[in-house]
Formats: sequence, C-alpha cells, structure tokens
Amino acid sequence: MTDTPKTDKPDIFDTRESEVRGYSRSWPATFAKAYGAKQWGEDGKEFIDFFSGAGALNYGHNNPVVMNPLVEYLQSGAVLHSLDMKTPAKREFLETFQDLILKPRGLDYTVMFPGPTGTNTVEAALKLARKVTGRQHMLSFTNAFHGMTLGSLSVTGNSMKREGAGIPLTNSSKIPYDDYFDGETQDFLWLEKVLEDSGSGVDKPAAVIVETVQGEGGLRAARAEWLRELSKLTKKHDILLIVDDVQAGCGRTGSFFSFEDAGIEPDIVCLSKSISGSGLPMALTLFRPELDVWEAGEHNGTFRGNNPAFVTATAAIKNFWADNTFQNELADTIAALHQRLDSIVEKAEGASIRGRGLLAGLHFEDDEVAGKVAAEAFDNGLLLETSGPKDEVTKIMPPLTISSHDLEQGLDIIEAAVLKFAPAAEPAAV
Amino acid sequence: MTDTPKTDKPDIFDTRESEVRGYSRSWPATFAKAYGAKQWGEDGKEFIDFFSGAGALNYGHNNPVVMNPLVEYLQSGAVLHSLDMKTPAKREFLETFQDLILKPRGLDYTVMFPGPTGTNTVEAALKLARKVTGRQHMLSFTNAFHGMTLGSLSVTGNSMKREGAGIPLTNSSKIPYDDYFDGETQDFLWLEKVLEDSGSGVDKPAAVIVETVQGEGGLRAARAEWLRELSKLTKKHDILLIVDDVQAGCGRTGSFFSFEDAGIEPDIVCLSKSISGSGLPMALTLFRPELDVWEAGEHNGTFRGNNPAFVTATAAIKNFWADNTFQNELADTIAALHQRLDSIVEKAEGASIRGRGLLAGLHFEDDEVAGKVAAEAFDNGLLLETSGPKDEVTKIMPPLTISSHDLEQGLDIIEAAVLKFAPAAEPAAV
Amino acid sequence: MTDTPKTDKPDIFDTRESEVRGYSRSWPATFAKAYGAKQWGEDGKEFIDFFSGAGALNYGHNNPVVMNPLVEYLQSGAVLHSLDMKTPAKREFLETFQDLILKPRGLDYTVMFPGPTGTNTVEAALKLARKVTGRQHMLSFTNAFHGMTLGSLSVTGNSMKREGAGIPLTNSSKIPYDDYFDGETQDFLWLEKVLEDSGSGVDKPAAVIVETVQGEGGLRAARAEWLRELSKLTKKHDILLIVDDVQAGCGRTGSFFSFEDAGIEPDIVCLSKSISGSGLPMALTLFRPELDVWEAGEHNGTFRGNNPAFVTATAAIKNFWADNTFQNELADTIAALHQRLDSIVEKAEGASIRGRGLLAGLHFEDDEVAGKVAAEAFDNGLLLETSGPKDEVTKIMPPLTISSHDLEQGLDIIEAAVLKFAPAAEPAAV
Amino acid sequence: MTDTPKTDKPDIFDTRESEVRGYSRSWPATFAKAYGAKQWGEDGKEFIDFFSGAGALNYGHNNPVVMNPLVEYLQSGAVLHSLDMKTPAKREFLETFQDLILKPRGLDYTVMFPGPTGTNTVEAALKLARKVTGRQHMLSFTNAFHGMTLGSLSVTGNSMKREGAGIPLTNSSKIPYDDYFDGETQDFLWLEKVLEDSGSGVDKPAAVIVETVQGEGGLRAARAEWLRELSKLTKKHDILLIVDDVQAGCGRTGSFFSFEDAGIEPDIVCLSKSISGSGLPMALTLFRPELDVWEAGEHNGTFRGNNPAFVTATAAIKNFWADNTFQNELADTIAALHQRLDSIVEKAEGASIRGRGLLAGLHFEDDEVAGKVAAEAFDNGLLLETSGPKDEVTKIMPPLTISSHDLEQGLDIIEAAVLKFAPAAEPAAV
Repeated sequence: MTDTPKTDKPDIFDTRESEVRGYSRSWPATFAKAYGAKQWGEDGKEFIDFFSGAGALNYGHNNPVVMNPLVEYLQSGAVLHSLDMKTPAKREFLETFQDLILKPRGLDYTVMFPGPTGTNTVEAALKLARKVTGRQHMLSFTNAFHGMTLGSLSVTGNSMKREGAGIPLTNSSKIPYDDYFDGETQDFLWLEKVLEDSGSGVDKPAAVIVETVQGEGGLRAARAEWLRELSKLTKKHDILLIVDDVQAGCGRTGSFFSFEDAGIEPDIVCLSKSISGSGLPMALTLFRPELDVWEAGEHNGTFRGNNPAFVTATAAIKNFWADNTFQNELADTIAALHQRLDSIVEKAEGASIRGRGLLAGLHFEDDEVAGKVAAEAFDNGLLLETSGPKDEVTKIMPPLTISSHDLEQGLDIIEAAVLKFAPAAEPAAV
Repeated sequence: MTDTPKTDKPDIFDTRESEVRGYSRSWPATFAKAYGAKQWGEDGKEFIDFFSGAGALNYGHNNPVVMNPLVEYLQSGAVLHSLDMKTPAKREFLETFQDLILKPRGLDYTVMFPGPTGTNTVEAALKLARKVTGRQHMLSFTNAFHGMTLGSLSVTGNSMKREGAGIPLTNSSKIPYDDYFDGETQDFLWLEKVLEDSGSGVDKPAAVIVETVQGEGGLRAARAEWLRELSKLTKKHDILLIVDDVQAGCGRTGSFFSFEDAGIEPDIVCLSKSISGSGLPMALTLFRPELDVWEAGEHNGTFRGNNPAFVTATAAIKNFWADNTFQNELADTIAALHQRLDSIVEKAEGASIRGRGLLAGLHFEDDEVAGKVAAEAFDNGLLLETSGPKDEVTKIMPPLTISSHDLEQGLDIIEAAVLKFAPAAEPAAV
Repeated sequence: MTDTPKTDKPDIFDTRESEVRGYSRSWPATFAKAYGAKQWGEDGKEFIDFFSGAGALNYGHNNPVVMNPLVEYLQSGAVLHSLDMKTPAKREFLETFQDLILKPRGLDYTVMFPGPTGTNTVEAALKLARKVTGRQHMLSFTNAFHGMTLGSLSVTGNSMKREGAGIPLTNSSKIPYDDYFDGETQDFLWLEKVLEDSGSGVDKPAAVIVETVQGEGGLRAARAEWLRELSKLTKKHDILLIVDDVQAGCGRTGSFFSFEDAGIEPDIVCLSKSISGSGLPMALTLFRPELDVWEAGEHNGTFRGNNPAFVTATAAIKNFWADNTFQNELADTIAALHQRLDSIVEKAEGASIRGRGLLAGLHFEDDEVAGKVAAEAFDNGLLLETSGPKDEVTKIMPPLTISSHDLEQGLDIIEAAVLKFAPAAEPAAV
Repeated sequence: MTDTPKTDKPDIFDTRESEVRGYSRSWPATFAKAYGAKQWGEDGKEFIDFFSGAGALNYGHNNPVVMNPLVEYLQSGAVLHSLDMKTPAKREFLETFQDLILKPRGLDYTVMFPGPTGTNTVEAALKLARKVTGRQHMLSFTNAFHGMTLGSLSVTGNSMKREGAGIPLTNSSKIPYDDYFDGETQDFLWLEKVLEDSGSGVDKPAAVIVETVQGEGGLRAARAEWLRELSKLTKKHDILLIVDDVQAGCGRTGSFFSFEDAGIEPDIVCLSKSISGSGLPMALTLFRPELDVWEAGEHNGTFRGNNPAFVTATAAIKNFWADNTFQNELADTIAALHQRLDSIVEKAEGASIRGRGLLAGLHFEDDEVAGKVAAEAFDNGLLLETSGPKDEVTKIMPPLTISSHDLEQGLDIIEAAVLKFAPAAEPAAV
C-alpha cells in the first residue's frame, strides 16, 4: 500500500465515488505528477508506466511536443469549444492529417468527428454501416471490445460488461477471431460458410468490425494474412469492413494504422485514444467518400469540436509522423521489447507472448499468474494491467517514446515477478 | 456569406469533412477568437454568442476564472489523463462538488465518472436503472433528446436522428411531455393509467428519464408542479426517476440543478456540458447511494479521468457556486431576458416565449420564421440556433455571465429580425 | 364440485397435464356431450353454454348443419389434409366465401390460409404489413389480445401473458383504446399528435391492429365513429389498418364482420375461431389485392389446408349467410340479451354493460364480483367466463343460434348470481 | 399440366388466393381423393405420395384405423372443441400416450397442449425455456426450420423465410449442425469454446433447439453420437435441450421419438404433424415435470382442445404403438428404401443419400437436379418435394404404412428421373 492517508479524514474516493471505479483499486496510489514514461504518487513514489492511459498516451505523459502548443493555444484567446463550427485549429488538424497521414499512405478517407471518445466513433461507424447497406445485422469477433454504450456493447464479447446492459444485446453475432481454435480449424471456415449458405440463419451483415489486436480481449493479434483474407471475404460479399483502431492505431503496433502491414484498406476506421497525442478526448471516424451518406446533424455530440485536442493532435502528427524517423526508432523499441519478452518466456513454464508491437502481453497457463505479476509489479514501481476474459494476460503497453533505460527497468520488474509466480521452465536440452 | 476564402484553395472542410457537419453550414464563418459572450471570425467579424457551445459554455468563452488554473495545471507537470485512478485534481473536484453543490442542497448522491460526454452519462444511467430494477423497459418523453449512441437514441424523440440508428430502437416507449396536448388533457392521465392497468401493454419501466426543459425538442419547459407529480408517481410505482440535466443543469435555468425549484430529488441525475466550466469534455452520473450496485469496471471509458476538466470544473464551482452572489446576478439576467422577450412577443403576431431561465426560446406560429430569424441574426452578428422537430423555435441561450450590454445588443438583433419576418401584432385595445 | 371422480385413480389431468391449463380449474367437470347451447358432464349434469368455445362455436355444438357434411366428407375418401394444394373442398370454400361473404358486402379481399389458429393469422398480418410498408413499428391498443406466439404477444396488452415471453417484446407500442380515459380526453388525441409530430419518438408504424370489441381485454367495444376516425387517420398517414376479427367476427356482433356497422374497410382482416363453423381449427388472413406481395411459401404452415374445416366453413356460410334470415334472427337475440342485461344492471349498484352484440359483458365496480358470479353460475349450470386484466367483467357469449328459452334461462342464473354478490341498486326515484 | 380446367371460368385459386401459396404451383392438380399412399386428381390421375402431408400423414391418407373412430366420435354427440376443459377423449389420449408411448420408453414428461400447430409447440417450448432459466438467448442450428411465427422464425435458418418477418430476428444465434463443415472440424468445437469462454460474446443460452433430421433444411441427419455429445454439453452447462420432433417424430425415423436411437432424453420435446395420426391439427409440448413453472393460462390457444384429433391420435397410438409389430415392419420398409437409394446413387454421378429412416433425401452436386427430378416425378405420377436452402435435395417421405409395391413404384419413377437429369456415374472398377 503506497498511498498512506495523510490524515484521518476518510478517503473521498471511498465515500463519494461509485463502486464502478476500477484502476484506483488495483493501483491504490494518488498520482500527482507524470512525465514521459513515469508517474509519481503524492508520496513521491515513482512508477514506470507500461499502461499509457490504456493507449491514450502513446507519446508519454506531458510531452512538451504537445503541451507547449496546447498552453500557447489556451493563452491565445482562440476558440476552445466549437462543436462542428469551423476553426483554424480544426482546419490545421484536417490539413495535417490529410497531408501527413492519409496521403502518404494512399488513403482517401472522409473524416468525421463523432464525439470525443472511442465508443462514440464505434457507434457512428455502426450507424453509418447500417445506413449505407440497409442491413441491420453486424458481425464482430469473440473477445472483441468496442465500448460501453449500447451499440458498441452489442459487438463486445465480455460477458460481465454485456450483462451491464440490463437488456438483451441484439442485431449482432459473434464469429471466431484469428486462431480462436488454436490452429485446429482453417481460417474463416465459419464465416465463409454462413455467408454462402442462405440457410445458415446468420443474416447478411452490414459490416464486420474487427480489432487487429484485441487490447482488452487478451492481446490476441490477428495475422496479416488473416486480415487480408477477412478483407477479401467482406469485399466478395459486399459487406463493409470496419477496423476499430482505437487502441491499436496511432503507432501502437509500429505503423500509424495497425492494418498497414497487412496491406488492407478498411471501409471504415475508428480512431480515438492517442489521436489527440496528449490524452485529451478526441475521436475520428474515417470512411471511404462514397459511404458519406449522412444527413447534416444525423449524428452529433457536444464535444466533437474539442480544439485543444485538435492542437495537440496536429502537433503530435507533425512531430512524429512527418517522416520515418520516429517510426524507425519505434521499430527498435518494439524489437527490444520482444527480444526481452522472448527471453522471459523461455525461463517460465507455460508463458507465451501475445500481441504485436507495443501492444503486447504475456499469457500464462495458470490464469492466476498475470494478476499476481501485475500486483507485484505495482509494489515494485511498475504500472502493468491485465487483460482477457479471466485477466489471464499481463498487458505490456509502454509509451511509444519510452527510453531504452525505462523499458529495460520495467521489464526487469516484470521478469522478476514472472519468475516469482510462474513455474521455472525446464532448461532446453543442449 | 461572412467567410470569404482568402485563396482559391478549396475549403478542406468541404473536401475532407463528412456531410454530417451541421453548424458550419448555418454559420459559415471560421471562428478564430472568443471571449466571454463573443466570438470573432478570422476576418475579424464579431458575433454575440447566444448559443454558448450548445450549453457547454455557461461561463462564457475563455473565462479567466477557469483558464488560468487550467494553464497553471498544464504547466505544473501534474497528471492529465488518468482513467479512474486517483489524482489530487479529481480529489479536489469531488470535495468541491460535495461541499459546494451537494451538501448545501441537502443532496447525497454517489458520483460516477462515466466517460466525458452527455450520451455517456445517459447510457450509464439507463444501464444502472435496468440493473438495479431488473426491468428492461424505459419511458421517455415526446421530443426528448438524450444523445446519439444507441441506448440514448432509444429514448430520444427526433425521427431523423432515430432513423440514423439503422435498426429498430427498442425497450422504450414515449409518454407525453408537460402540456403536450396544449392543456387539453390532465397531466399524467396516460402515465397513471398505464401503470395501474396490468392490461395496458406498457411494460413496467425501470425508469422514466426526463429533461426539465427540452433544449433540443423545442424549448418546452416542464412546470414545477408537473415535475413534482412525476416524481410522486414514479415513487409510488417504484420506478426510478432520471433527470437528464446535461443541458439544463449547471445554472442554466437559474439554479445549479434545474430541478431545484420543483423541490424534487431524482434517483439519478445526468450532468455534462457545462460541468467542466470551460468547454472541456466531462460528464457525471449522480445517484442515490443505495443504487450503487455496479461491479468494478462494469462501465468504463478511456477519457473518464480528464484532469484538465476536473481543474476547470473545480475552479468554476468555487468561483460561481460558493455563495449566492452569482445566482442572484443570474436571476437579474434571467429577468432582463424574459422582460425583453415579453416585449418582443407583444409586437409579433403568433410569437410566444418558451423555456425557462437562460434556456429560452421564441416560438412562432409560422414554422419558417425561426429559421429566418436565426439566419438574419447571423448576418447581423448574433449566433442563434433553432430547436424543435421542425426548427420552429429560436433558441436563446447566452452565457450565464453575459453583460447587460451584450444581452441587450443581442436582443436588439433578435427583435429586428422577428419584426422583419413575423407579422406585426394588432396593437392591444386601450 | 360437480365432477366426482368415479374411482380412486388419480386424475390424469392432475398428474400428467401441465399447470398451464386454465378452464379445467374454473370448470372442474369432464364434458362428455354437447349440443347446441348445452354441454353435459360425464355425470349427466347439464350446462348452458354462454362461452361458445371462446367464440369458436358461434353456431353451437355439433350443429347438424355442419356436422352432417363433415361426416359425409370424411366418409367419402376425399382429401383431409392438403397444405396449400388445390382440393375441391378448398375451391368450394373460396367460391362460397367470395360469393356469399365478400361480394354482397362489396369487399374485394385476397384470401390467405396462414395456418389454422388465431395467432397464425395475426402473425401473418403483422409480417405482411411490415413487408409491404418497409416499416417495423406496430401500434396496438391498451388491453388488446392478439395471441400467444411472439409476434402476436408483442401487440397484446396483458402483463402476465407478456411476461411469459421471457424476453422484451419489441417493435410495437400501445395507444389508448376507445374510451380508455372514461371520456376525459378526445379520441385519438395521442395518436394524431404523435403521427404528426416528427419529434414524438413514436416511429411511424407499418400498421395499427385493432379489435372492434376487446374480447379478452374486458369486453370494451369501440364505437362506430371511433372506428371510422381510426380508419380515416390511418389512411391519411398511409398506415395499414388491421382488424383482428378472430373473436368478434363471423356474426358475433350481429353482422358477419364486426366492422360492417362502422362502414370501414380495413386493409387486412384476421379471421379464425368460428370461420370453420364447427370448432375445427381454421384461419384466414384477408387483405387488399395490392398488398399481396408475398413470395411463394414465404409464410406457411402444415395445417393450412384442413379440408374438414373447409367443408364445415362452406356449410355454415351457405346455411347462415346466404340471405338475411339468420342475421335478422340474430338481431332479435341480441336485442333480447341486451334488454335483459339492462334490467339486471338497473338492479345492481355499480354494474354496467360492456361489449356489443353477443360479445357482451357485465362490469362491476367491485373487481371481485365477476369471478364470484361466474363461479356461482357454474354451480347452477351455466358456463360463463370472466375477462379483463383483473377478471373484473363477466363475459356473456352464447352461441348465435341459442334459443330464447336457453338464453333466458342462462340470464336467470346470471341475474340471481349478480343479485347475490353485487350490492342492490337504490330504487330510482319516481 | 395435368389439371385441365373443365370450363372457361378463371381458376379461383389464381384469382382469389394469395401469392403465398406454394404446393399448388409445383403440383398444379386438384386433388379429389386420397387413400393410403395415393392421391387422385379430379381428372382421375393417380399419384403415389412420397410427401405425406409434409409429415402429417405418417399413417397414410384416410387410414380406416383413425377414420372410423373419428366418424363414430363425430356422430356420437361428444364434445368437439373444448380448449383445455376436461373431456373423456382428452383423458383417453393422455392415458394412452402415457401408457403406450412414455412409460415403455422410461420417459416421464409433463404434457402441454399448446395450440394445434408445429409453430405453436415451438413457441411454447422457447417461452418455457426462457421462463425456467431466466435467460433470454437461444441457440439453434444452421439450416434449422422451426416455424413461421416470430419466435420460431427467430430460430429458423432460411433467409427468405427470415426476411418475411420484416423486423430483425433477435435473441438467438446459430451454431453449426452436425457435419456442417463436411468433416473438416471436430464436433461442437465452436459450441464448447463459446460456452466456456466468458469473453465469447455469445450470451449463455436458455436452451439449444435441435431437429435430429433437418426436414426442411436439406435432410441432414445428425449422428447419434453427435446428439449424445450435444446432450452432454447442454447438461454440463445447465442449458436446456429442446428436440423439435415435429417432423422427425411419430415414427418417421423408425422409432416413435427420433432421438430414441441416440439414447438421449431431451428436456423439452415438440410434437405435432403426425401426432393426431390423421392429418387433423394437433400439437404437444412435453417437458420434464420440474420445468412445469407455467402459470394457469400463461400460454393458451383457442384450438388446443381439438377432440377429433385426440380421438384419432389415440386410435393411431393404440393401433401402431401398442407393441413392436408396426415398428418392425417399419424397419423393413426403411431398409428397402435405403437399399434402393444406395443403388440409385451408385448410378448417378454426384448423388448422395441424406436423412434417416423414412425422412430421406437425394442430394445432387448440381443444385438444379433435385427440382427437375421432382417436376418429372410429378408428371409421372409421384409427389416428391425438394428441400434445402437452394432446393438442392429431393425429399423422400412416403407414409410409414406404404406397401412394398407402392414404394418400389415410386422409387422406379425417381430412378428414371435421376438417370435422366444427373450425369451417369463411371462404372466402378472391377
């Protein structure tokens, strides 16, 4: 327990905040300061951050690259909140996003500002897909996570979160994610079959929504060839493909969009979390221009014009994505992480690596280990989350900008914890 | 057209942003600066703001009261983004909200941070009401607006927005709002009857969700006695009462919560828009402590810990709500507005006042007038929105902090526009 | 208790049949014989039948008019079961129905055989209305009863029956039936308003489904002018009007279709119960020829070609509806019934007449009275059901063919029971 | 065209009956007489019947075994229509069913009369399963057919029939039927995985509903070991198992219940079609006594007490199921059919046998063949239906009582048609 109350006053988080809070239970510190890959408790305790605001802090905490323009903007008398009115900050974001993100990748997406959270962009994507196709069914994957509002929850897998809806979640069904059957069945056997069989009872969907890496669902990463096959199948059957890149996008897997490696071009892309570059709320829904059948105001949201976020988003893109420098450094960081994870799993019986890029995980055969590792890590100054339906995977998600030193230090803590709780591996025969 | 393009370059808002945008069509300026009750276009044109960020800017643009602490916070190295981890900024917000808002009003609400937008807090409220009661049906009112994600949309009235869902909106039905039948029927005749009649076919609802003033639905304001009757009825039938105070709350109607006048105590209250005091995204769901049956993490959201918003929210509450000074000044502003509106409607045939406090409207018998008034106002330097299913009401929503001078100037523009488009009233007989 | 078990053997109805059984509890006799308006228990006890097989035996039990041709048909080697293959019996039914029912009434309905029960014809009607209009919402009335399968149940009012679904009943909402507010509000105030208000949140329905008399919902009868107004409103808004004439049709209210008096022509009509004339299962869905957009086999059912029922249906129509004789006699029976009911309610405080034609009821202010009257009636040899959400109405539904003698005898039993359980009325002042 | 109109009068089936009719198109005769395995057109043309009323005529047309008691009953003055009142005919049916069907098979099912059609018993089963478990989701199989009312349609596979609903079919999802992937994946891989994975997003179902042979879905027969595995899985996960034995039951596969061979005991069993033994409408829902949680009247239906059907049902059971004689003869018929089918498929390239018992089919690689075979068969005097999502299987379903002579004659017609339309097989190498 790192967070000794200073007085006898009862903790207002206990007395006033809802039981729904989660992280403050696993990590019972009060975090006062943060910079780069580190956070400090009120008592001065230092933590390396392998959590990155659940993916919203890809460039680290309080990165001057975004914070300086932000403060400058706020002091300039410019418009802070503008819904979908035009502002110079929004114009500059659109131009920057177009010129540095879309054009170099040969992508021609229309940009929608759907309200500044992940679940907002997913809801907008689902609505648009249904409107465009006139179909009502939606397919999503086992262990998917897309958000907590009713539409997003309908395409989410986790049963505890689903039950929170209090009503049946309808108009969608689940299909197996890559390697769901541990290699026992061929990819898309089920999907192909039900789409081609008019008696399957699976209504032709408006879209398939997919995460390239399942950040909440246990860090399963889809293979590039699986994504290509999925893209081919949806095209063949005239079904829209939505990539929910809320967590895996913005560089997290090594490229700006997580689907670049696979060489696919989804019909709709959802971005949020790190798109603002600063942790400020922002989200985008991108789609092929032909799909832009919205009526004016048919989807809206009070905070869809959060200019401070546009400012930091612009700064982040200009700084990190104007050329390949950052992406190359990121490749090194990814390589370093995975080399070290390889070495860790070699030493621990039943441990294996999950995920891709800096959206990685360690899976243990014993479901209890991941939680123990995370708790031990916290005690030793590392913020590390678990993931998966049974919290059976430790989730390793440092800022993309983490230094080698901080990365290795965090991994040292992980290795020690793993070796403490997972059985030691038999030494490989020489 | 006030926004002459400086170059021949095509406008990126036209070429890249989705057709879903709305305000940038009615108000084709690019807004560069804003302060208090004013915004300025890039070309320097000044606008008085009777829109207030759709209610998110109750204390005006760039109010130093909130902007100074915000900049200071951002420069301090404190945590910006924290999900539901503990931070000093969140603690101070909770303490301030408890001590200056809840306690003085005798309210004991548990506070939930559901994600930083209005639709997030509504979705959380609906989920909680269903979970607590084990019932699935929800009642909402004709012309209600509660948000654009699937759950919120289900309790919303507007048919264009509903159709955007692309699927049937289920598990809710509509009941008539106060005075829906223009005084022809007694209040709650339908609600009482269907609740007491086990053959009504209206399933017993988990909750009734209500706005005290329908900001999007045409500025209808419920009478205090109607709200009391509603509260009594829901209590009698063991149904939860949710007040969606996203737009009408935070002082907009003259008191912090819009239901204070009525003397009722809803089971669940939704706040967003002006709760941050600055236009930064933030939302709260408040509920009676006995209703706090959430499991940890059962509802979540990446941006639920937006510390800059906590900082500005705290500053706004401390500055405006620590004693009665602001509320008294606000009463004067409200009186001034309504006195002037009275005078305007006397001069225009078929015009009438809608709404309550600074959430007011002018309704015209001819559905076309409101839109013409708003367009004319824009040309003359006033931002004025329309509301209602046919955009038949001009919506008058200046900052709560507007000066008499700006208020009168804006109203002058309105009066001139009204007299231009609405038929003149017969002079009253002497 | 009239049904003394003959032996000590446990009653197989108790040991083997499901708890879902109902009538065998209220009427614990075993009925061995039946003829006309009478049934006899195994022990020989005679009952006058004011129940008529819940409306399926409008021409009484074992009426030779239908039974003779039935037996003849069964002995002839003709086809008994034919799905929707052509048979001479079906052809003759179609010709007879066309020539003696439709043509004389100036009705040009296409005839569908949807499966031989009431709920089948309602489900077919709802499906067709949704298919034709492309709309999904359905409006039905408070206290409506349309059947027990999922689609029909969705438009039914009774909460106990609705809960039997085990899932939320969606895609429909309820509007107030004629005089639901006891004359306090004008007809269709709600319906007109929500249809004309695009912000009402009541989605434009595919159809409105209505019973002209609510047989299960408490014997409320809609007034002819109310039905006309409903018909006008649906036409005006391009909404289909479905009359569920399953119980009120086939002469029960004095004319073949219950809506003839009102002079309306519904878009779709559901018939079942007495359409076979014999109690054999049969149902029809009638609709305007332009609505016949079904694909072959898009709705089906194994027993939709129940030829024995076609034979008795044909015989019944030929015998009773070839000219006005029967209808004139029926008018006398109806007059006799209502005269007598008038006299009964004059003597009992708080009693009033419900219903229309031979689908009548006695409503008592004290909800307990109707049940007591029915129980007492059974003991005295009269089968009499209750109706309404609280079983607060005695339902009086003798065969249309009942003799004056049997009718008066049954009414004597009712009068005695009413006077026993309802408080005596104050004698009217002279 | 075998059915030359006798006059110039337009055919009333064309002018008055709905386009929804199906069989009268494929088989454009008017069927006047029927006996045993034969039907005769009005013009005297004889047809062998390999259709058996879609399974409702297992004992052939007009079998004196059931017709004599039926006529006798109808002439006796006994009660024809009784809802769920007690009658001697119902008592005798219950006793007979208990003593000759349930007891000898060691089954202790409570008997419910849910309304006299297949879809009625399925709807009752689904409602009961949801009520008992408090769960709302339902699992059914690819290519399942369970009926045309909304609840049954939700668990049905055929897309054309599903679209007829006009609304999304919710609260159920589909799982692969036995051998859906042509042996490529292990049984229940998907079902086991999703039930055990709390992140699968497939809500825990109230029940799984299954046909042991998919009569409408292409005559796929589940293997006994698959059914056993399914039964084990549902028990393990506390999910109810519903066997829809509407088409496969009543002896069709060689035993009274189609699941007897597999040695399983479903929680709920649906019977209809041939349960009356005569083609008269009747249905039963059977379930374990512990599941009988219905409230009185919670599910009902006007024709649930169709006494003529009880009489023929009793007669059929007494005649055919009192001892093993009939079942042994049936085994011979089945053997004869399958021997002959073996021989046919050997001669035709790409032909294979589907189904089980006398619910058999011929599948052809070329989807067009089955339809051509059926049309040719009709011309040559054999009634033969097609089945499957593309009508790619000829369905062979003669009465269980068919004589060897009629069986062989029908098969001769099939063989000739198959050899005409399917490519001849390469002679097997010696």
